[in-house]
This record gives sequence, C-alpha cells and structure tokens, in this order.
Amino acid sequence: MREVAVIGIGLTKFGELWDTPLRDLFAMAAADCLEDAGVGRDQVQSAYIGCMTSGMFVAQEHLASILTDYAGLKGIAATRVESACASGGAAFRAAYLEVASGASDFVLAGGVEKMNDGADATACLAAAADQEYEVFHGVTFPGLYAMIAQAHMAKYGTTPEQMAAVAVKNHDNGARNPKAQFQMEITKDTVLNAVRVAEPLGLFDCSPVTDGGACVLLAPVEVARKLGKPIVKIIGSGHATDTIALHDREDFASIPVVGLAAQRAFQQAGIGIKDVDFAEVHDCFTISEIVCTEELGIFERGKGGPAAEAGETALDGSFPVNTSGGLKSKGHPVGATGIAQICEVYAQLTGRAGDRQLKNPRRGLAQNMGGSGGSCTVHILEVES
Amino acid sequence: MREVAVIGIGLTKFGELWDTPLRDLFAMAAADCLEDAGVGRDQVQSAYIGCMTSGMFVAQEHLASILTDYAGLKGIAATRVESACASGGAAFRAAYLEVASGASDFVLAGGVEKMNDGADATACLAAAADQEYEVFHGVTFPGLYAMIAQAHMAKYGTTPEQMAAVAVKNHDNGARNPKAQFQMEITKDTVLNAVRVAEPLGLFDCSPVTDGGACVLLAPVEVARKLGKPIVKIIGSGHATDTIALHDREDFASIPVVGLAAQRAFQQAGIGIKDVDFAEVHDCFTISEIVCTEELGIFERGKGGPAAEAGETALDGSFPVNTSGGLKSKGHPVGATGIAQICEVYAQLTGRAGDRQLKNPRRGLAQNMGGSGGSCTVHILEVES
Repeated sequence: MREVAVIGIGLTKFGELWDTPLRDLFAMAAADCLEDAGVGRDQVQSAYIGCMTSGMFVAQEHLASILTDYAGLKGIAATRVESACASGGAAFRAAYLEVASGASDFVLAGGVEKMNDGADATACLAAAADQEYEVFHGVTFPGLYAMIAQAHMAKYGTTPEQMAAVAVKNHDNGARNPKAQFQMEITKDTVLNAVRVAEPLGLFDCSPVTDGGACVLLAPVEVARKLGKPIVKIIGSGHATDTIALHDREDFASIPVVGLAAQRAFQQAGIGIKDVDFAEVHDCFTISEIVCTEELGIFERGKGGPAAEAGETALDGSFPVNTSGGLKSKGHPVGATGIAQICEVYAQLTGRAGDRQLKNPRRGLAQNMGGSGGSCTVHILEVES
Repeated sequence: MREVAVIGIGLTKFGELWDTPLRDLFAMAAADCLEDAGVGRDQVQSAYIGCMTSGMFVAQEHLASILTDYAGLKGIAATRVESACASGGAAFRAAYLEVASGASDFVLAGGVEKMNDGADATACLAAAADQEYEVFHGVTFPGLYAMIAQAHMAKYGTTPEQMAAVAVKNHDNGARNPKAQFQMEITKDTVLNAVRVAEPLGLFDCSPVTDGGACVLLAPVEVARKLGKPIVKIIGSGHATDTIALHDREDFASIPVVGLAAQRAFQQAGIGIKDVDFAEVHDCFTISEIVCTEELGIFERGKGGPAAEAGETALDGSFPVNTSGGLKSKGHPVGATGIAQICEVYAQLTGRAGDRQLKNPRRGLAQNMGGSGGSCTVHILEVES
C-alpha cells in the first residue's frame, strides 16, 4: 500500500443554512478544498462523498452525479457512501484505500447533509436505528443515548454535572471556531436547567440539526512532497460494525464498536493512544463523548466523566478532545461530520487552528460513529516534523 | 495494485418478494455467496453494499450495520455505497480497490433493494434524477428514456420493432434463468401492443419493480489460486460521471458516460471490445440497451437497433448481450443489479449458466448505469484457461 497524505481542506459554515441547497453545500466545500490544496479540477480523478439520508431529507439520491456535476468535477469516478452519522468517516476511508491502492493520485473525500429543509429531522435520523425493532416501537436517538447515559450513571457513577462539563467545554472551543454553528460559550447551569429531551439528557446535551459540507483532498505522500505541502500522513485507518440495535448489545454502558475500530487503526499505525496528542470524538450527545474517550483508551472505563469535569479534555488539558467544538457546538450535519473532523485534525497539525490552536501537536485522531454504535471509523493522522 | 479475482457468487430469487424484508434479501445472498466461495464468515474482513434508496423505500439507512448484523458478519468493516441504479457497480469497484490495495484479502461486494413494500416506486426512483430541475417539473425515468428513444429514432431511424426485439430476446434469456422475475417468453406483438408508458415506450420496454439481493466475494488472485478456485480476474474497472440532468447534455441520442467508463476499463485491461465475448448491459429500458451497446463499441452508432433485430445480441448471436435476461426480464432491484450482472458474468465464465450457457467464453463485461446516464461503471472479467 502506498502512503497517503491529506493535502487540502474545505469546510462551509455550519448552521441553519436555509438559502443553501444540498448541491451548493458540497460545491462550496469542494471549491475551498481544491483552492487550499492548489490542485486543479482536471487533476481530481475520483471522489467519495459521505451523506446519510439526502433521500429522506430532500428526496435526492444519485449524489455522485449531482454533486460532482455542480462542483465542476463532471466525468470523474465518484461514489456516495453511507454509514449513518459515520458516512463521512467511511468516505474518507474509501478515498484513502483508493489512493493507497495506486489506482488514483488525487481523490476527494467529501461529506454533506442538508437537514433544514422541512423534513422531520428526528424521523430521518431514526433511519440509522433498526426501523422494525427500535423505531417502530417509538425510540429515537435521544432515547437510545439516554439509555446509554442511564447505564453509565448506574455502573460508574457518572453524573449530569460531568456530562454538562462536556457541553461547556465544547461550546468554549466552538466559540473560537468561525465555522461553528454555535459560536457562544455556555455555563453548566444552562446545560443542567435546559428543557429535558430524554432523561438524563437535556437540550444542551444534544448536538443540533445542521446543514453543512466538508471536503479533504488526498494524495500519495510522494506527490504531496513534490507539491511542497506539509506532510500530514494517514498512519492508521480502522473501521468496524456492531449490531444495529442497542438491545442486542451486552452492556449499554459501553460502545464496543469504537474500541474495535480504534484497535484496528492503532494496529496499522503501530502506536497506542499515549502516542496521540488530541482527538476529535463523536459527541452526538454529551454521554457519547464520555463513553468514546473511554473506548479509545484516553481514560479508563468509568473515568471519562470525572476527566471531563476536571478539564483534562479542554484545550489546555492533558488530552484535548473536540478542539473544533465537536458535534455539540460546531454542529452535526451528519454526512459531513466525519470529514469535518479530519479538517480539524489537519488544521491543528498544520498550525492553522487559529484561536483554538494546540501547541505543536504531532498526531491527532478522528473518531466518527454511526447510530447508537452500529458502525465506527477511527483515523490517525501524523504530521512530519 | 494486486490482481483481484471473484471467488464466489450468491443471488436471491428476483421478484415481488412481499414476505422477505430488506435485511433478509442481503443475508440470503451473502450466505449463498460465502457457501459458494467456501469461505467462512470469520475470514471476511470488509463489505461494500450497493443500495439506491432504502431510506425512501423502507425508511432504513445505516445498511452497513443492519445488513452485516443480520448476515452474521457483525464486526467487519462495512460501507453502503450509492450511485442510483449503478450502486451495485460502485460497490463492486470499491471492494475491488480495497483488495487491490492490500488492505484486505476477503471483501464482500453486495447489492440489495426492497422496492415492493408500499412506497411509490416511481417517486423513489425519481430521486436518481435532478429533484429540483427535472422531477419538480414532472418528469420521471420513463419520460427521460422516452426522450432518449425519440432522439435516437429521429437521428438514426431506430424503430419500435427494434426496441421490441431487445425485450423479446431478454425474455427468451430470462425464461432460462431460474432466478429471473419473469421466466416467460414474449412476442414482438406483446411488446408493441402493450399499454403505453411514455411514447415510444410501452410497458414491455420498461424493466420492472423488483426485490432482490446479490453478493460476490473478492480475493487476491494468489489467494484464489491457493483455494483451488477457477481464476476469474477483474482485468478492467472503469467508473465515470456525467451531468445529472438529461437537459444538460449535448445529444440525447447518446449516453456519453458509458463510453467514458468503458474507455477507462479497456485502458486498464489493455484490450478492446473485440476481445470481449459477451456483456451484461444496463437495459432499464429497451432503448437503453441499444444505446449502451453503441457506447460500448459493440455496434457502430445507430446500428444497435438493427443489430438487436437481426439477432446479433441473442445467445447464439455474434455478441450475446444480457444472457441473464437483463434488467428487463431478470428484474431490476436497483441496488442489486450491478452485482447481479457480475454474478452472471462469473457464471458464464465458469460454465455454470445452465440453459443459457455460452460456449467457452473467455472475457465478459458488466455495464451498470445510474439515472439517465449520470454515472456508470464498467467491469471486465477474464477467466484463466
């Protein structure tokens, strides 16, 4: 396999973008990405685009055709990839494998979701759960993650205050991210006193409904070197699945698919979590960030909550998590999220993260998850010093 | 890139399978495929599953998780791939690239669609066209292909009788395929006198609404050899896109994306169409088979119709097309179609095509198309003699 690097990133503003249709969200991100990479449209050979459910949101499928068409990339090989909220991560992995295979040199990995356009977002997102054995009986994602939260509280003593600390920290970071949906700081009281969604999760424990697009361009390391780019290598790519239904898992207080995907990524990279400096983690709900930091091995089981409350995941903490603001504050256009995570890791590794820049990080991790943990990708990027 | 082979195939019956849900369609095809390959579930590392719009048909996304879960493949890396009716071909290509890259040895490429479950199939399929600039104004796929047919008739003198010959031939072949939706022969009069759908296309010019699943297993040629399998190599993989909207193309009497994808596949294979013995071609409508045989170079432009009428594409013709019965008679579960085409090419190359077996074919081609030609894949397979 050839070594592969990220050589450019592009990201729309995230938010309620009522004036911006699906096709424009992708075209804008692709244009910014190619400009950032300094690569012409005629050099791009292929694209993988993550999107969860443009069919249910805006009755548009065949994204490979429509999105490359409107992005000025007509003719290239292009494929839309779906793995619920892990669609972006899955697209990134497919693009990585195509470059690694030697079939193509310049491959675009994109993600996009148009969620604000009239459709019932909760019903659309519920298609990531088991429609016949979960959704039919009335459960949607806030309910599923509430069950995970209740189990984690019962087993490890995790508290609402610890979950609130995740939201406060991610809003602190999002306030420093000009692309974030919510560029505002919040207090613990705001989270704890917010309207309840599904106990113990309140409104500020939940990621929002977001429109957005994101793209990154991949190329062989050799090619990146010739172009004089900073060398940001993909050193590990892990991907795994689990049962779609939460009720089929042994323990609600864990999300095993995260550990399995991470194990595969670490094995390929030949390193462990201690060799990684920071991570973008799938915080679709505050409890999710806590459980995922445990599954990734950043903290021991049951210690994710206390660590968040102690500030260990803050920008100046021992292991910064979601410097971008995460899904909670940056926003969660589901298909774009996995690519936006890669954008943030790349920005941090190349010193372009502005007011939220970490001090000379060398390795960053992006963990993107589908459903209640039915699928997950983990990617580890390393910048050459 | 490593050389890659197909080492097993599995296919459900195609048809109106009211008793069989989406997840079972895939699980059944995967089980048959793995049994055919003689490979255990614990050896499979990854899967790519083509599906056009399970979201709109049955409100289920996150197929990577639910389908691997119900197929007993929980844990593997899995990704759902969508490119409208070319979803299966796109899944096959992604699986091919993963094996070629060296990342995995055993990768499943599947396709599935559950179209008979209450949803409005015409509206769901219309999501493969431009929802805002085509569908909004009332056009759906029979109308789009009728415009292609009208243009081809005007430019080349193609006749309804020539189009009918495609349907008759594909039903002849489908009558010999136990997996086909319509195992019955028809006459030219049946086609010409059928109820009109969109002039000049009648009911028998159109492929049906179908439930079905299909899988093939890929492995490196070296591994296939060690397992003592017939060596059916993927010698060319071409993939291309075009404008999503028909009105943005220069000439309605051609479908350029097919020629572009074919050119890429032939370039990789280092051969031309004259070196290929037969093809599965995307006959979503009879006119589509005629145009595609021209785009592939099997016949000169404008000669596809006369060739079909002269029997050149029949089982005993100079270049057999759609020995399986094609989309027209075998059925067209959109996400599964591209993989089912590969199953037929493999069956023919390994002498397993029963009553429709060709005499010792060496190379076969599968052409799978999305929308009105917004995307296309072309794969060329060769059996080692």
